[in-house]
Amino acid sequence: MNVAFVNPFITSTIKTFKTMLGVDVAPGKPLIKTDLQPTYDVSGIIGLSGEAQGAIALSFSESTALKVVSGMLGIELTTIGMEVTDGIGELANIIAGFAKQDFRDFSLSISLPNVIVGRNHRITSPSGSPTIMVPFNGSIGLFCMEVSLKTK
Amino acid sequence: MNVAFVNPFITSTIKTFKTMLGVDVAPGKPLIKTDLQPTYDVSGIIGLSGEAQGAIALSFSESTALKVVSGMLGIELTTIGMEVTDGIGELANIIAGFAKQDFRDFSLSISLPNVIVGRNHRITSPSGSPTIMVPFNGSIGLFCMEVSLKTK
Repeated sequence: MNVAFVNPFITSTIKTFKTMLGVDVAPGKPLIKTDLQPTYDVSGIIGLSGEAQGAIALSFSESTALKVVSGMLGIELTTIGMEVTDGIGELANIIAGFAKQDFRDFSLSISLPNVIVGRNHRITSPSGSPTIMVPFNGSIGLFCMEVSLKTK
Repeated sequence: MNVAFVNPFITSTIKTFKTMLGVDVAPGKPLIKTDLQPTYDVSGIIGLSGEAQGAIALSFSESTALKVVSGMLGIELTTIGMEVTDGIGELANIIAGFAKQDFRDFSLSISLPNVIVGRNHRITSPSGSPTIMVPFNGSIGLFCMEVSLKTK
């Protein structure tokens, strides 16, 4: 995976949080995921295909997921129900949708999102397809993006 | 979602288990996933996009995932490590790859698989996009397929 492929997803995440939540989020240093296996409570996953193939996941602790979707909807949510899973899926959809427009050398299409709910789950990609992790920080808390993308 | 869309995935799952594991698996009655929220330990997820948009997940208990990948590799695995996540991802990839060839009215492309590991996780799809669940049973145990697919 070309490390530069992660940049459209970083830009899109910053823009989406600013537009939809009015919140600034700052990316940390992108890391190639190796033995590091961070765990999450709520993850929005979208597949990427077309002239390249990959996937993107946006992953949150339960408390951050609640804050994010509460901010999107302007109501205070306290449990992980359908509002939250729909909200995290929509967020992943918007971020992937913006990002795909920035790939000039190949066209990408995006799948429907799935949202995983489960305390301390982890996400793996095929071991031959490196995944880049980008931690984000902001007033809503920490969250993580994982991107894998390979050209054919 | 057209319920018939699930048939290529059922056929492909039966064929893949027979070919790769020498095991017969039988589908139960497909159900539209509503409030039912089954939980899983290991799930392989692949996004579908192109002229339709969706996702497919193959979900297992820990013990069934171990049996499945042990059967694929011909060795006995006892812990959920990279062999198992790669194996479940590859299985999802083969099943989605066979199934997409059966859609004549539109073309589908498939993403890279992600494999989720986490005791008792659940998978949600956007609430506007119905998901069909198909339970499977065989000598390797029970597992479940979840398919969402909508034409544009």
